[in-house]
Amino acid sequence: MKTWVPISENSDFSIYNIPFGIFSTPYNKRRVGIAIGEFVMDLYEVSKLGIFDKLDIELEVFEANYLNEFISLGKPVTTKVRTIIQEQLCDETSLLRTGKNIFYLQKEVSMHLPVLIGDYTDFYSSIEHATNVGIMFRDPENALLPNWKHIPVGYHGRSSSILISGENIHRPKGQVVLPNEMNPIFQQSSRVDFELEMGFVIGKKTTIGDSVSIDNAEEYIFGKVLFNDWSARDIQKWEYVPLGPFLAKSFASSISPWIVTLEALDRFRVSGPKQEPKVLPYLAFQGMKNYDINLEVSIQPKNGNETIVSESNFKFMYWNMSQQLAHHTSNGCNINVGDLMASGTISGKNPNSYGSMLELTWAGKNPIQLSNGEKRKFIEDYDTVIMRGYCEKDGIRVGFGEVKSQLLPVKK
Amino acid sequence: MKTWVPISENSDFSIYNIPFGIFSTPYNKRRVGIAIGEFVMDLYEVSKLGIFDKLDIELEVFEANYLNEFISLGKPVTTKVRTIIQEQLCDETSLLRTGKNIFYLQKEVSMHLPVLIGDYTDFYSSIEHATNVGIMFRDPENALLPNWKHIPVGYHGRSSSILISGENIHRPKGQVVLPNEMNPIFQQSSRVDFELEMGFVIGKKTTIGDSVSIDNAEEYIFGKVLFNDWSARDIQKWEYVPLGPFLAKSFASSISPWIVTLEALDRFRVSGPKQEPKVLPYLAFQGMKNYDINLEVSIQPKNGNETIVSESNFKFMYWNMSQQLAHHTSNGCNINVGDLMASGTISGKNPNSYGSMLELTWAGKNPIQLSNGEKRKFIEDYDTVIMRGYCEKDGIRVGFGEVKSQLLPVKK
Repeated sequence: MKTWVPISENSDFSIYNIPFGIFSTPYNKRRVGIAIGEFVMDLYEVSKLGIFDKLDIELEVFEANYLNEFISLGKPVTTKVRTIIQEQLCDETSLLRTGKNIFYLQKEVSMHLPVLIGDYTDFYSSIEHATNVGIMFRDPENALLPNWKHIPVGYHGRSSSILISGENIHRPKGQVVLPNEMNPIFQQSSRVDFELEMGFVIGKKTTIGDSVSIDNAEEYIFGKVLFNDWSARDIQKWEYVPLGPFLAKSFASSISPWIVTLEALDRFRVSGPKQEPKVLPYLAFQGMKNYDINLEVSIQPKNGNETIVSESNFKFMYWNMSQQLAHHTSNGCNINVGDLMASGTISGKNPNSYGSMLELTWAGKNPIQLSNGEKRKFIEDYDTVIMRGYCEKDGIRVGFGEVKSQLLPVKK
Repeated sequence: MKTWVPISENSDFSIYNIPFGIFSTPYNKRRVGIAIGEFVMDLYEVSKLGIFDKLDIELEVFEANYLNEFISLGKPVTTKVRTIIQEQLCDETSLLRTGKNIFYLQKEVSMHLPVLIGDYTDFYSSIEHATNVGIMFRDPENALLPNWKHIPVGYHGRSSSILISGENIHRPKGQVVLPNEMNPIFQQSSRVDFELEMGFVIGKKTTIGDSVSIDNAEEYIFGKVLFNDWSARDIQKWEYVPLGPFLAKSFASSISPWIVTLEALDRFRVSGPKQEPKVLPYLAFQGMKNYDINLEVSIQPKNGNETIVSESNFKFMYWNMSQQLAHHTSNGCNINVGDLMASGTISGKNPNSYGSMLELTWAGKNPIQLSNGEKRKFIEDYDTVIMRGYCEKDGIRVGFGEVKSQLLPVKK
C-alpha cells in the first residue's frame, strides 16, 4: 500500500496500522479519529463526506466521548471502516485530500481515554515476571505457585483510576511495614514502580452464563494498547495476602491513546513459549496466538534526558490473550464492549528485559544508572516513565506510540 | 410520622424508610421510584405534580435507567426529596392521594439494577468470617493474617455480573483439584455457596489523588443494599493464591433493588466491636459507626418451603463503612457515584450466625437439615437463596426487602 500522506519511515502510524482513538480540539467536542503519520484524521468530518455511506453508520457514532459505540458496531463493520480508510489514503483522487478540517497534527490535539472501561482485569501471564516476584516476595525454592502453569492467573483491578497518557499521577500513601518492624505505619510509598504491560479491549459482549471458546476468542478482541500498571511495592507487600493487590495498584494506571486493531497486528503473529504441562482442553489452542511486539521503557528524570531501562517483547508471554479470555469467561462471567484486560508485567529471560523496577533493580539491591548520572532503585518524584511499542516485519511497521506520565509528589 | 398510605405493621417500607430504586411497568420506561408499604411510588409522575419544584430538578432525572444522575444531585438535594415525600405521605390533603398513576403494587412492577456500577469492591471485614475461612483454607494456628487487624482488607470485584434480585444464576464451571490429586480438572463447581453481605453505594465522587477523611466518609455514602456474593469454593481454593479470588466470584453477585439511605438508618447506629490493637490515625473514628441490622438467609429447595439457615447482624462488623472508605481512598484512588462496596461475609460469634455455607456446614462436614428433610452441604441446583434484612427500634421498622435468586444448572 502506498499512501499520499507524507509519513516518515519509522512512524508507528503507517498505512498498515490505522489505530482508533478519541481526540478533541479547542473548537470541537470529542470525536473518533485515526492516527496516520504525525496526523490525526477526524472520522466525524470524514463520515460527512459520505465515504462510509454504504456501511450505514449514524454520524453521531463519530462524535462521542468514547469508542464504545463505534466498537459495538462489530468487527464486520469496523474492519470495513479501516479498509475504506486505507483505500482512501492510497487513492490519489480521494476526497480526503481536498476536504477541510480532516487532518490535525497529533501534537495539536488532546487525546482522551479511548473507551469507557466497564471492568478492568489484570493477568499475571509472564512466567519470568511471576518467577522473579515469587523469588522476592515469597520463596526462592517455590517461586512459581502450583496453579501458575494451569491457570492464566488474573485478578480484578480498578477501572476508575485508569488514566490516559499525559495525565500525571501522584505518589500514593499507604500502610507499610518498615524493615525489622512488626507493625505498619502510614506514610508515602517509597517504592513506586511501573509495570510494563499491554492491554486488550473487548469488542463484543457476551451474556452472563456464556463462555467464549478459545477458538473464537479473538473475535471478541477489538485491539491493543500499551499499559503502565503503576505499583507501590511497599504497600503491596503488606496488603496482598490473602486477597491480592489492592491499594498498591488502584492509585493509577496509564494507557496509550491509540487502540491498534488485531487486524493490524495479524502479520506479526508468532508462536509462544511451549506450555508444559499440557493445558486443559478449554485452554488448548491452534495456530500462532502470540505477537512479536518490541517494547521499551525509559525514565526521564526532572533534569535530564531519557534512559532506556527495559527492552522487552510481548512475544515472551506464556499465556496468550485467547487463553486469558477463554479462562475469564469459563465460569460464565459476562464481558462488555470496552472492558480492558491487561497482560501483567512483560518480562523476558534477559535481565534487561524485565518489565518493572522491582525486577530490574532486584528490589532495590542493584540500582540503575541514568544517563544524567543519577541512580534509581524505584521511581522518584518528577520522573517521567515512557513506554513504547512497535512491530516490524518485511519493512512494514505498526506501532503503538507511547504511554507517558510523570510521577508528582503526594497530593496535599 | 403518620402516613395515609395503608402499611402493615411489619413492613420493611415504613414511612421512616423511603428507599430509592428503579422500576418499570409494561407501559413505561424505567423510572425512579420509592417503596412505601406494598407500593412503589413513581417519582416521575410525582415530580410532574410540582412537588419538587423548589429543588429545581430536571424531570428527566426521574425517567432514567439508573439512579446515578439522581444521586449525583447530592445529599442536600436527595435528602430534601426524601423529606418532602415523607411530608406528602403524611399530609391528608396531599395531591399524591388523588393523582393518577402514582402508585403501583410492588408485585406488579419489574425492578432493575438501581445504579450503573462503575467499580465494585468487596471487603473482608467480619473478624469471625475471616477467622473461620483462615482456619479452613489455611492454618488453624494462624487463622487471622498479621495485616487483618490493621487494614480493612478488600479487593476489586467484577461489576458486570452483579444482578438484581429475581435474576437467576447458573452454576459455574472451573478448574478444581479433587481430593488427593495434584492436578486440576475442568468441571462444574460442586461447592456453590452464598455469602451474606451488605453493600453501600457511593453518593459523591472524588478526584484522583484525593482521600476521603474518616470523619467525612458518610457524606460519600448514599445508602445500603443487601448483597449475595455468590462463591464457588472449589474454584476459589485452587485459584486464589497469590492474587485473590477471581472466577470463584465473578460468575454472579446479587443485590436487593431498594437502596436504603444512610439517613433512614441513622437511628439504628450502634458501637462496633472494640478494635485492638489501636488502628492507625487515618482509620480512627469517633461516635457510633456500626448499624444494628438484623439479617437472615434462607434456602428454598425446588420442592419445599424456606428454611432459615443463618441469622446474623450487620453490627458484628469489625471494620465499619467509614473505615473501609477512608482506607480505599487513602492512596488517592478516586471513587464515582454508583460505585458499590460490599462488606464481606457477615458472620457473628454464634455458629447459627455464620454468613456462608462454608462456615455453617464447616466445609461440608456438618450438613444442614432443611424443613423438607433434605440435607445441604452447599447450594444445589434449583435451590433459591433469599436474604432479608431490617432494623427495628422503639416501634420503628426500616428494612431492605430481600435479595432472592435461584441457582440453575450449568448453562449449556
